[in-house]
Amino acid sequence: MSTAPTLAIDGMGGDHAPEVIVAGLSIALERHPEALFLLFGDEARLTPLLARHPRLARATTLRHAAEVIPGDLKPTAALRLRQASMRLAIDAVAAGEAQGVVSAGNTGALLTLAKIVLKTLPGIDRPAMAGIAPSARGDVVMLDLGANVQCDARNLVEFAVMGDVFARVTLGLPAPRIGLLNVGAEEMKGDERLRQAAEILKESPIAARFHGFVEGHDIAAGTTDVVVTDGFTGNVALKTGEGALKLIGQLLRQVFTASVSARIGYLLAKSSLERLREWLDPRRYNGAVMLGLNGVVVKSHGGTDAEGFAHAMDVAMDMVLHNFNERIREGLSGVLAAQTAKDEAAKDEAAKKPAAAGLADAGG
Amino acid sequence: MSTAPTLAIDGMGGDHAPEVIVAGLSIALERHPEALFLLFGDEARLTPLLARHPRLARATTLRHAAEVIPGDLKPTAALRLRQASMRLAIDAVAAGEAQGVVSAGNTGALLTLAKIVLKTLPGIDRPAMAGIAPSARGDVVMLDLGANVQCDARNLVEFAVMGDVFARVTLGLPAPRIGLLNVGAEEMKGDERLRQAAEILKESPIAARFHGFVEGHDIAAGTTDVVVTDGFTGNVALKTGEGALKLIGQLLRQVFTASVSARIGYLLAKSSLERLREWLDPRRYNGAVMLGLNGVVVKSHGGTDAEGFAHAMDVAMDMVLHNFNERIREGLSGVLAAQTAKDEAAKDEAAKKPAAAGLADAGG
Repeated sequence: MSTAPTLAIDGMGGDHAPEVIVAGLSIALERHPEALFLLFGDEARLTPLLARHPRLARATTLRHAAEVIPGDLKPTAALRLRQASMRLAIDAVAAGEAQGVVSAGNTGALLTLAKIVLKTLPGIDRPAMAGIAPSARGDVVMLDLGANVQCDARNLVEFAVMGDVFARVTLGLPAPRIGLLNVGAEEMKGDERLRQAAEILKESPIAARFHGFVEGHDIAAGTTDVVVTDGFTGNVALKTGEGALKLIGQLLRQVFTASVSARIGYLLAKSSLERLREWLDPRRYNGAVMLGLNGVVVKSHGGTDAEGFAHAMDVAMDMVLHNFNERIREGLSGVLAAQTAKDEAAKDEAAKKPAAAGLADAGG
Repeated sequence: MSTAPTLAIDGMGGDHAPEVIVAGLSIALERHPEALFLLFGDEARLTPLLARHPRLARATTLRHAAEVIPGDLKPTAALRLRQASMRLAIDAVAAGEAQGVVSAGNTGALLTLAKIVLKTLPGIDRPAMAGIAPSARGDVVMLDLGANVQCDARNLVEFAVMGDVFARVTLGLPAPRIGLLNVGAEEMKGDERLRQAAEILKESPIAARFHGFVEGHDIAAGTTDVVVTDGFTGNVALKTGEGALKLIGQLLRQVFTASVSARIGYLLAKSSLERLREWLDPRRYNGAVMLGLNGVVVKSHGGTDAEGFAHAMDVAMDMVLHNFNERIREGLSGVLAAQTAKDEAAKDEAAKKPAAAGLADAGG
């Protein structure tokens, strides 16, 4: 088998598959000429598309998949489609034929299948979905974006460790600052779960990078490089922010078509406005990543175009080339070792005063 | 005692008190010439300020308050300051001297004091904090914004009822559409608590106005007129949206100062851009409201100016003039009656088949 970085691709996932997928792969190959692709999908449709991109065809191994997972299929039903393009692409990662998988298909199905087929990394209780959002001080990593509707303190700590490594790999930050999303910055704010997670992080090997609690407005302000939260809050926050940006985009279009002078005004400010639009372009933030699995798993937005899909491919390549999972393992072992040492010390302490320990247990 | 609408005012709360408070009251009186104010605070500082506004001075009864609750004081500590301007203003509502209270002071203290002094309306388990946000289809009522970090299904149903009445009173909508914030619009999304709340609302007297689940991006899209959620998620969503809008504002300022042609472009599009800026002006959305208490309680942003404080006064006046709490009581009794009837029917049903009911209990 080749030692070149290899990605397994769901050729049939998303609103504009397979055309956009193949066009996106072609862009991705220009940026990563060393990459190899295992492309899964309907051979009859993919063969002519690949034929238009001879270089891509050489870098790609096409494998027929007889089934496609519809966008609205429940994850449990998706499990039964064993010949689906998404399933076969994930299977290829499990078999060691590829280091990662990229799909623009059904998010719930990808999450469920990847968890079941690839399984979580040793030491990770639950995988998380991470993404990147724009801020006043550069890009910000957010997680979890919806893989876990409910989380405990331990899950949040794992998310912080994974977010730290993800920010170092994809944003290239040597020491990302990490914030825990809450309803206030004061230590007494939020629930027990958040206070516990903050306590653990404050005494962990990443304590120097842990900023403490942040609030909703800190995301766009870029107060920290990583924002850690449960999947419910993260999903709502990300979509709320995206919605607000989209609303402003619509309103600005109205502003600049409201009158002739406004139209001329737009033309005069065009180059700066275009730079702003490019910077906020949702395609630049395409590619939510499932962290904590044995293999790289990247979800592209279902409605994206070729450029957006290529960006999701970039994220997957970054993670494969930087041995993302190896670094998660290292990061995690440090935090868990610190926590275990602390637990042991507490146990020793408890053993010295058995009566007090008994009382403490009853109280907890 | 007068039958004119009377509001009790915390003259010392907020970053720019008491100057901004008095200036704000003066604007509010122009809009509501029939209103009377009970103003609490430092007599030595307030008397000369009132002297500058003779009409306001005639509509206002000044009462000395020896203490002020600092912005960073813990709510439990605020309870001990019985001569504080905020406390005395709330006491005046409890005593029936005023129908509502407006404060720009410490949010946590206002929440705690109002809950303890005024107590919840009959049938309301927990008060909620509501606010108004801009959307593509007009203003949207959001609640809870942080009064309750954790909520159960019953709390969410109460919030929906209160949000419905609030949207009718403050936005003047005859039949507001109500959405329950979730991570997806499908019925199986979210947790048990959300699914239960949706079930109750679907069979309630406001069922025709209940739209079902909405997502984060639906807030700015204006999919529904009311967005119901728990205080943790609501607080994060509101601040995330505000943060995104603020970021765009900063970036647009950069765009229009980037070059001479961009500056001229700004001047040409100025009138439309100004309208957009006014529409998004945070002062227009100033005034978070505590719903579900025996009395109207409005929190102004601490950093607001006179115009913003006057807007918070408008919200309080709207609620007093439209007998907000009376309408909450009516709305609530309808929903609770429907729920009670359903519970009774279920009980009757269960009584008919005792064995099956026993099994169901064991399973639950």
